[in-house]
Amino acid sequence: MAKFDKTIIRYEKELLESVIPFWEKNCVDREMGGYFTSLDRDGSVYDTEKYMWMQWRIVYMFATLYMSEYRKDSWLDIARDGYDFLVRHGKSGDGGYYFALNRRGEPSMAPYSIFSDCFAAMGAAAMHKATGEKKYRVEADSAMRTYISRMSSPKGRWEKSLPGKQKRLSLASYMILANLGSVMKECLGTEDYDADTGRAVDTVMEKFWNEERQVIFENVNQDGTFDLDSCEGRIINPGHGLESMWFVLQYAEGRKDAKLIDKACKAVSGLYKFGTDPVYGGIYYFMDVLGKPHIELQWDMKLWWPHNEAAIAALFAYRLSGKDEYLKIFDDVDKWSWEHFRDPQYGEWYAYLNRRGEPTHYHKGGKWKTFFHVPRSLLMCINQMKKLQ
Amino acid sequence: MAKFDKTIIRYEKELLESVIPFWEKNCVDREMGGYFTSLDRDGSVYDTEKYMWMQWRIVYMFATLYMSEYRKDSWLDIARDGYDFLVRHGKSGDGGYYFALNRRGEPSMAPYSIFSDCFAAMGAAAMHKATGEKKYRVEADSAMRTYISRMSSPKGRWEKSLPGKQKRLSLASYMILANLGSVMKECLGTEDYDADTGRAVDTVMEKFWNEERQVIFENVNQDGTFDLDSCEGRIINPGHGLESMWFVLQYAEGRKDAKLIDKACKAVSGLYKFGTDPVYGGIYYFMDVLGKPHIELQWDMKLWWPHNEAAIAALFAYRLSGKDEYLKIFDDVDKWSWEHFRDPQYGEWYAYLNRRGEPTHYHKGGKWKTFFHVPRSLLMCINQMKKLQ
Repeated sequence: MAKFDKTIIRYEKELLESVIPFWEKNCVDREMGGYFTSLDRDGSVYDTEKYMWMQWRIVYMFATLYMSEYRKDSWLDIARDGYDFLVRHGKSGDGGYYFALNRRGEPSMAPYSIFSDCFAAMGAAAMHKATGEKKYRVEADSAMRTYISRMSSPKGRWEKSLPGKQKRLSLASYMILANLGSVMKECLGTEDYDADTGRAVDTVMEKFWNEERQVIFENVNQDGTFDLDSCEGRIINPGHGLESMWFVLQYAEGRKDAKLIDKACKAVSGLYKFGTDPVYGGIYYFMDVLGKPHIELQWDMKLWWPHNEAAIAALFAYRLSGKDEYLKIFDDVDKWSWEHFRDPQYGEWYAYLNRRGEPTHYHKGGKWKTFFHVPRSLLMCINQMKKLQ
Repeated sequence: MAKFDKTIIRYEKELLESVIPFWEKNCVDREMGGYFTSLDRDGSVYDTEKYMWMQWRIVYMFATLYMSEYRKDSWLDIARDGYDFLVRHGKSGDGGYYFALNRRGEPSMAPYSIFSDCFAAMGAAAMHKATGEKKYRVEADSAMRTYISRMSSPKGRWEKSLPGKQKRLSLASYMILANLGSVMKECLGTEDYDADTGRAVDTVMEKFWNEERQVIFENVNQDGTFDLDSCEGRIINPGHGLESMWFVLQYAEGRKDAKLIDKACKAVSGLYKFGTDPVYGGIYYFMDVLGKPHIELQWDMKLWWPHNEAAIAALFAYRLSGKDEYLKIFDDVDKWSWEHFRDPQYGEWYAYLNRRGEPTHYHKGGKWKTFFHVPRSLLMCINQMKKLQ
C-alpha cells in the first residue's frame, strides 16, 4: 500500500460524507436565491445576511468540485443558481461587488472590499471552465480587471488612512493575486494575467519575506523595509503566510523555478516554526514579530483556516522539495486539526478554538467562514497526495 | 469602623499608588506633545500612534483627578499640555476630531468616529471646571455641538450601510449622551444640554431595555422593536449595558426620579445575571440574547472595563435602592477583578483575560485602553462608598 493510501481515504470520506453534504443540505436559499452561510452547528440558519466573499466562494467551490473526479451534476446546479443571484443583485454602479446583500438580494453593505471582486472572478472563472459558456468568462475578466484596477487603492472612498499614516504595502492583495492568476490561467486558458501574477509573486518574496527572521510579514514599508516600531509593521499572520506560500509554490512549479521553490519552502518551514504554539499545539492567529503586545484580542485563538492552508503548504513543499521535514509538518497539522476542529456528530469543522484547542463557538459558517477553506484543503491535499503516490 | 472603610483604603491605595503613578510616569510624550497610550506591562512604549479617544480621555481623567480631594498640581499640567496638543493638531476642516494622529501630530486616520468629539467635549469641559478658563468652555461647547449634530449619521461619509440593511438604533450614541449631559451640566453649569440628555435617557430605557429578557440590547429597530432574527439584533454587551445604567442612575438621582431609579436598578440586576460566566466567573464581553453563535471571536473574553463599569453600577444601585442584592454584586465584581486584572509587580491592570481569567495580553494601554476606565471606576467607587458611610 502506498504511503498516503489511508490518509487519502480518510480525506475523501471527510470531504464527500461530511463537509459537502453539510453545505449541500443547508446552504441553498431555495426561496430567495443565493446561499445561507450563517449555519449553526446542526446546519440551522442563524442569520440571513449574504456576504459576498462567502457567497462567491461557494460558487467557486461547487464549480471546482464538479470538475473533480468526484463530479456530481447537482453541484453545478448549486453553483449556477448562486452565480445567477449574485450577478443579478451583487454589482454596484461602478462595476465592483457589494460587500453584502440582505436575504432578498438588496445591497446592504457598500462595495468597500476589493476581495468581493477577487472571489467573484474566481467563481466566474470556475463556472467557465465547468461549462464552457462564454458569459462566465466575460464576468471573470470583468471582475478580474476591477480587482487589478483597485489594487492601488483597495478601499477607495472608504479609506480612512490620511497622509500622516506611514504608507505600507499589505500582503493580502499581492498574495491573493498569485492565486487568482493561477485560477485564471487554468480556468480561462489565458496568459493575460501572467505579468500581473509574476509581479505579485515577486513582491511577496522580495518585500514581505524577511530572511533574517524567516517569516512573511503582513505589512511592509513601500520601499520594502520592515517597520519594527509599530504594531502594524510587526504583525505576523502565520496562516496567511503559509497560504501565500502554497500560492507561490504552485506558481513556481508551473515555471520550474527551483530557486523560488527553495525560497518558498524555507518560508513554509520558518512560518510554521514561528507560528506554532509550543504549549498547546496548533497555529496562532496573529503574532507580533518581536513578541510585543498584540492589538487583536483574539491573537492566540486557533482558527480552522490557517490549519487548512498549512496542510496544503506542507504537502506542496514536501512534494517539490522531497524533504521529510515538510511531511512531518503535514502530519502534525493533520493530527492537530483532526483532533480539534472536526465535528463527528453534525459534520463539517468548527471555526474558532481557544488557545487550548477547545471550541469557543460551535457554528459551521458565518460572516467569515463558508464552504471554502475546509473543502479546498481536503481536495488539494488529496490531489497532492495522489501525485506523491 | 464604617463598613466600607477597608475597601475605601484599598481603592485609594490602588488609585494613588499604582494606577496614577503608572500613567504619570509613562504616558507623557515630552518631546512631541500628547500622550503615549500603547504602554507595555512595564510602561515601555510599543507603538506611538495617538488615538483620539485615548488621548482625550487622559485629559479628562487628569483634570478630573485634579478636582478631587487628592489634587496634585502636576495632574493639571499633564492635562493642559495634552489639551494644547490635541486642539492644535486634532481638528479636521469640518470641526470634527480625527480618529488618530501620528506621534508628531499629523492626522493619520480620518474623523470617522463621533466618539472622538464626545471625549473631546468631556476633556475640555473638565479643563474648564478645573481652571475656570473660558477657552476650554468654548471648545467643550463646540465639540458637544459637533457630537449632537453627528448623531443622526455618526459615521458620515464612512458609513458602509446601504438601504438594504435594516435601520437600527445603536445604544452607544444614546448612552454616552446620558453621561456627556451630566459632565456638561456639572463642569459648565449649563442647562443647554438637559433636553438632549433627557431624550437620550428616555430612548435607552424605552427602546433598548427589554423587560421580558431583563437586559439592555445593543441594537434595536427604529420603532423600538427587537430583531431576534439577526446577529446584530441579538447582541448583548453586558458591560456596556451596566455602564449605561450608572449613567441613567446618576441622571435619575439628579431628578429624584424614583421610577427611573427602580427600572435602572432592575436592569443592573438583569444584566449582571445574564452577563456573568457561571463557570469561571467574570463578565462576558459579548453575548447573543438567544445563545446563538456570536459573530465576534472574542465574545467569551473577560475585559477590564466591563468590570470597572459593573462596580460603579452596583454601588449606584445599592446606594439608591438600599437593596443588599447590589452590594453582593459589587463584592463579587470587586473580588473577581482584584484577583484577575491587577498587576502587583508593575502596577495598573491588564486589559484582556481569556474566559478562565488568565491574561492573554500583558500591556496596560493600547488602541482601546488608556487612563480612563480603571481610574474613573476607582474614583467613583470611592465617592459612592463615602456617601454610603
